[in-house]
Amino acid sequence: MERPIITLLTDFGTTDHYVGAMKGVMLGIAPDAQLVDISHEISPYGIAEAAYTLAQAWGCFPAGTVHLVVVDPGVGSARRAIAAEFGGRCFVAPDNGVLTMAIGKDARVHEITAARLFRRPVSRTFHGRDIFSPVAAHLAAGLELGEVGPRVDDWVELDVEDSEGRVLKVDRFGNLITSFETGKWLPRLAGGFEMKVGSTVVSRVVQNYADAGEGLFVIPGSAGFLEISARQASAAEIAQAVAGAEIEIAAKSR
Amino acid sequence: MERPIITLLTDFGTTDHYVGAMKGVMLGIAPDAQLVDISHEISPYGIAEAAYTLAQAWGCFPAGTVHLVVVDPGVGSARRAIAAEFGGRCFVAPDNGVLTMAIGKDARVHEITAARLFRRPVSRTFHGRDIFSPVAAHLAAGLELGEVGPRVDDWVELDVEDSEGRVLKVDRFGNLITSFETGKWLPRLAGGFEMKVGSTVVSRVVQNYADAGEGLFVIPGSAGFLEISARQASAAEIAQAVAGAEIEIAAKSR
Amino acid sequence: MERPIITLLTDFGTTDHYVGAMKGVMLGIAPDAQLVDISHEISPYGIAEAAYTLAQAWGCFPAGTVHLVVVDPGVGSARRAIAAEFGGRCFVAPDNGVLTMAIGKDARVHEITAARLFRRPVSRTFHGRDIFSPVAAHLAAGLELGEVGPRVDDWVELDVEDSEGRVLKVDRFGNLITSFETGKWLPRLAGGFEMKVGSTVVSRVVQNYADAGEGLFVIPGSAGFLEISARQASAAEIAQAVAGAEIEIAAKSR
Repeated sequence: MERPIITLLTDFGTTDHYVGAMKGVMLGIAPDAQLVDISHEISPYGIAEAAYTLAQAWGCFPAGTVHLVVVDPGVGSARRAIAAEFGGRCFVAPDNGVLTMAIGKDARVHEITAARLFRRPVSRTFHGRDIFSPVAAHLAAGLELGEVGPRVDDWVELDVEDSEGRVLKVDRFGNLITSFETGKWLPRLAGGFEMKVGSTVVSRVVQNYADAGEGLFVIPGSAGFLEISARQASAAEIAQAVAGAEIEIAAKSR
Repeated sequence: MERPIITLLTDFGTTDHYVGAMKGVMLGIAPDAQLVDISHEISPYGIAEAAYTLAQAWGCFPAGTVHLVVVDPGVGSARRAIAAEFGGRCFVAPDNGVLTMAIGKDARVHEITAARLFRRPVSRTFHGRDIFSPVAAHLAAGLELGEVGPRVDDWVELDVEDSEGRVLKVDRFGNLITSFETGKWLPRLAGGFEMKVGSTVVSRVVQNYADAGEGLFVIPGSAGFLEISARQASAAEIAQAVAGAEIEIAAKSR
Repeated sequence: MERPIITLLTDFGTTDHYVGAMKGVMLGIAPDAQLVDISHEISPYGIAEAAYTLAQAWGCFPAGTVHLVVVDPGVGSARRAIAAEFGGRCFVAPDNGVLTMAIGKDARVHEITAARLFRRPVSRTFHGRDIFSPVAAHLAAGLELGEVGPRVDDWVELDVEDSEGRVLKVDRFGNLITSFETGKWLPRLAGGFEMKVGSTVVSRVVQNYADAGEGLFVIPGSAGFLEISARQASAAEIAQAVAGAEIEIAAKSR
């Protein structure tokens, strides 16, 4: 039998014991699990950033993978915990919108209420260890989704569409990943355009970093969105832009 | 047979080849091992910080786990290397106090002297790769603890009790994890209190982040210690406090 | 059968989804693989730094390991992708010199051209996910090296010999790893020497950190090169030196 895969996506960082503790709990329940870190460097409480990162990664994993997301500013409050099935994968997360960009309308979502699955005692501040990790591990070990609790249809969704556009994420290289989908926007730029972020204007598209020359440019990113980049330099520094910054496109009519 | 688990806790960071080299050595000896990073971001030479982090994580792992700790300012000196059994787990570390908060008085501790287990040649500066990793991997693969060397009873212990109290650790969110145990101190605060760190005074306890409102507060942390926190902000920045800072509690008499 | 090992060495950082996506692709092809991170914190586009890091790590892994390196400033350009066999290990990387310090002249190197192995569609900017990862996973799962494409003999090599010497890398502790090989240079320093980096002069060798006392010193590093270090302090900060900085040795004649 193949080893079940569990991925982890959190804002816990890797300085503390938090991620290790969650992995220990999971291996106690699912000793054969393949544990894969997506990232633990989501900005603290960055729900939209986590939603974007999950959306980029989950489709690369084989069917049957369990994706555990713990970005949970509401821990200890009345926010629900949920587990979902979509596209042949499982997702376990707080019900705060973090799954919005990954799961579709037809996902099967259950609230997590089955306390018999939890680690005891359940702390007030570390549900990642006490609730989310054991549930993810039980699902990876073969538990039926319906066993975690009752089905719900009103899970929280983020409003991620934005007609103005904005910087979804600044990646490690300083690329600005915009909310403009390549398939929709690239054709409109063919006649010339200005993309404004703060006081910076970008007005050319390149297809490869190698062709880029000096200065800022727009490039179709691997995530399906247009990115503002600079060759071997940080576009974020040049444009003084951060995640969440607004972007305007003015496309010239042909 | 289940795959043995080896956890790693070091101050090596993840920029260099050090952690990868240790893992390569271990997989050469124990190819089926589950390798789990607790953290490699312990402050350089931060023995007390590592002791605290290990104490928080080890109990989450199943019996039989081998916990490898390499925070080793004395590498190359006469400090001993030790391996210990406690609570059904194994621990491998330099004998500098780093196991203090994890293992109890009744731990079985052996000095590591069996050079036949080491990687050759043994460098002067990287015992993590040449001594600790191979010994941890042999233990994970089934070696009896007594095979590593003679039993010792005088292992080094840190003095971690502190009547004044101090900041044990600043976590990624800027929470100040104090040395005040929740079970002992929380009841004493019920009649009102002042907790002073530097020139900052905190005087309220909350049970959930969601109930916290503005400003600094004390919260029972998931680690069993009181923490000074701020909601969606860094308590460390607000209080200008770092790991090791002193904290005073003045509890009002009822 | 033993689980195949695949190591990862990139400049992707761990903030983004990039590494997770690569791992997902690999586990879809080689579900039993042991995935081991060497580092994802190579400086962006740091080919020489990656070459050094790989050289330090690969020999610690058992025969049969596949080493995947994605430090790829030329992604999307005409630069080749290669796979190599050397010393019983496999290497998969862009053909930009990043394997220089790991593989020898007698390595068997093939250009990666077999598009049937790739993930579809192949993006212009993320060959790590679409080309390098699937090829590495297929090799780990048993694919013959010759199946990836035609043999080549003119792979790119970095010029890493430098008569002047330089800082190969600044490690997490601020140690300056120099390009001076210990075996060659240590004997020459026995009669007294001056090692200059910027305006800083170092003129003593110690064998152990514990013997070092105050100030900067030269120590034989675990990597086989001389290192400039300070005890429990950052030599890089003291000497204001960064990776790539030039170093001069003046050895006194005896």
